[in-house]
Amino acid sequence: MPSIKDVAELAGVGVGTVSRVINNHPAVKSETREKVNVAIKQLNYIPNEVARNFKMQKSTMVALLLPSIWHPFFSELAYYIEDELDREGYKLMLCNSGGRPDKELYYLDMLNQNKVAGIIGITYNDIEDSVSTDIPIISLDRHLGKKITCVTSDNYTGGRIALQELVKAGATKVAYLGVTSSAYSEVLLRKSGFIDEAKIQGIEFSTYEEHDEVYEDDSFFENFFNLPHHQNVNGIFANTDILAAKYIDKAKLYGLRTPEDVKVIGYDGIQDNKLFRPILSTIRQPVEEMARISVKLLLRKIEGELLEQEIYRIPVMYRRGETT
Amino acid sequence: MPSIKDVAELAGVGVGTVSRVINNHPAVKSETREKVNVAIKQLNYIPNEVARNFKMQKSTMVALLLPSIWHPFFSELAYYIEDELDREGYKLMLCNSGGRPDKELYYLDMLNQNKVAGIIGITYNDIEDSVSTDIPIISLDRHLGKKITCVTSDNYTGGRIALQELVKAGATKVAYLGVTSSAYSEVLLRKSGFIDEAKIQGIEFSTYEEHDEVYEDDSFFENFFNLPHHQNVNGIFANTDILAAKYIDKAKLYGLRTPEDVKVIGYDGIQDNKLFRPILSTIRQPVEEMARISVKLLLRKIEGELLEQEIYRIPVMYRRGETT
Repeated sequence: MPSIKDVAELAGVGVGTVSRVINNHPAVKSETREKVNVAIKQLNYIPNEVARNFKMQKSTMVALLLPSIWHPFFSELAYYIEDELDREGYKLMLCNSGGRPDKELYYLDMLNQNKVAGIIGITYNDIEDSVSTDIPIISLDRHLGKKITCVTSDNYTGGRIALQELVKAGATKVAYLGVTSSAYSEVLLRKSGFIDEAKIQGIEFSTYEEHDEVYEDDSFFENFFNLPHHQNVNGIFANTDILAAKYIDKAKLYGLRTPEDVKVIGYDGIQDNKLFRPILSTIRQPVEEMARISVKLLLRKIEGELLEQEIYRIPVMYRRGETT
Repeated sequence: MPSIKDVAELAGVGVGTVSRVINNHPAVKSETREKVNVAIKQLNYIPNEVARNFKMQKSTMVALLLPSIWHPFFSELAYYIEDELDREGYKLMLCNSGGRPDKELYYLDMLNQNKVAGIIGITYNDIEDSVSTDIPIISLDRHLGKKITCVTSDNYTGGRIALQELVKAGATKVAYLGVTSSAYSEVLLRKSGFIDEAKIQGIEFSTYEEHDEVYEDDSFFENFFNLPHHQNVNGIFANTDILAAKYIDKAKLYGLRTPEDVKVIGYDGIQDNKLFRPILSTIRQPVEEMARISVKLLLRKIEGELLEQEIYRIPVMYRRGETT
């Protein structure tokens, strides 16, 4: 049976390098990796037994915590995160936390036990107390506190752009629609940007929000449409695309056509084709960039680097559809 | 510093049980797990060092290979697979193979090295040669050969139902549209079922397919519409929902309205809300059931059981939208 030394000799590298290739350590050049793999194949070398005897390697697994992969925004995000991790020699462990604190804490434990090298995630619970400052976690959208580095779209500017675009499209009385959660979230800045810009422009505005624990489609919109000061609203900024699409659907029942009677802008940019209508006007999150930057920052944290910023806000773009 | 024995004593269990809890072995009752975790917390026991000294445990990681998680069908599938694995104490490793043989083979290597306990996947390459009969792999949709257990929707019956429903909706001349890949796939049975049922019913039919390596939206439909025998086709069965939506979009350019001039049925059932139009009539894949059964079968294989069947075909349902 061939030994790891035989592989190293044939590949013209050291035994340590072979071990790193076997353990998929990221710091091996792809040429070297290739040479070693060719040698392994040629000798029909089974690394399992030997790899066990080497001292425990650092995990090359990164956990991704998402409320649900079954949502177009999160599945696009996961796609690019996996792609970027793969380039760096890391694997992705996927967890749908569904907002459950026990699942989120479970993965923190795995991190503490070196079973995962780091975590990228959207967490909904106040798990701040359980982590130390320099732990390799990147938070998406939720800025959990100063301890955890956060990567997010530039929500505030997104809210301002939404207001500007509604006005350009002819809206004169606008409303912000939101579903909120109790965790402090960067998402709230979409509202702040919207409000600040409305004040700057001197546009009549209102906001309508319900908490996600009580939110229910029918009652949300019934409540909204029944409030007297929502009469004659002709511009809507919904804090997600799905909420925008629901508004458009419900508005029909009140005789409101989009965009003739009311202009609507969402947030996310989840539609990746033009086959299904309406094609929403939306603030497009830079999903690919957010994903790749998150991975890059996480790997720097894993290497023990200190990052310059607490929050990395990535610029957004307005994508005009047919609802403005 | 507390030892594993202290934890075992406090929890009233054996040291082996504590080890299994630490290593997240699936065969521990949730009560017992709870007791051990309480003891670990109470003693502030750090299992890392000790766990290392225990002999290598079996991996509790299952790899999921998908062409791309950024597709609504696959993200729904991944959601339920993760949920079912989580119930059983397993973790999900996600890989977007993008059809690349090297990535698929890489995960097979991980399996051979016990770094993952099993694989569930949609594989596009002929990796049959690299696996042995009893290896814990479950293939979705692609029946790679007799060696690998396959879980799929009942594609053949789906094709028959599609033909029946087109005829019920008034179609008198029908066509099957498909994008094919070179790997033998269960998906081809959608066509067989459609053809067989058309013959039984004595309905005029044709099929039009292009290979995924040359497929391109515009030319595919141009070629289709320009063939003389496709004149007056008033019923379409497309082998995916996306292809059905593209057909509907392109047909407009030829003055064909859906469902007035042509009835259209897709396959998959990717639309999970009624907010975006058209709402496709479709053969709905039983995604949740496929996911959970795949996990159950995989875990039986991991335990060394022999399964009764080579292919598990899960019944489909017709879901009427507004395109028939």
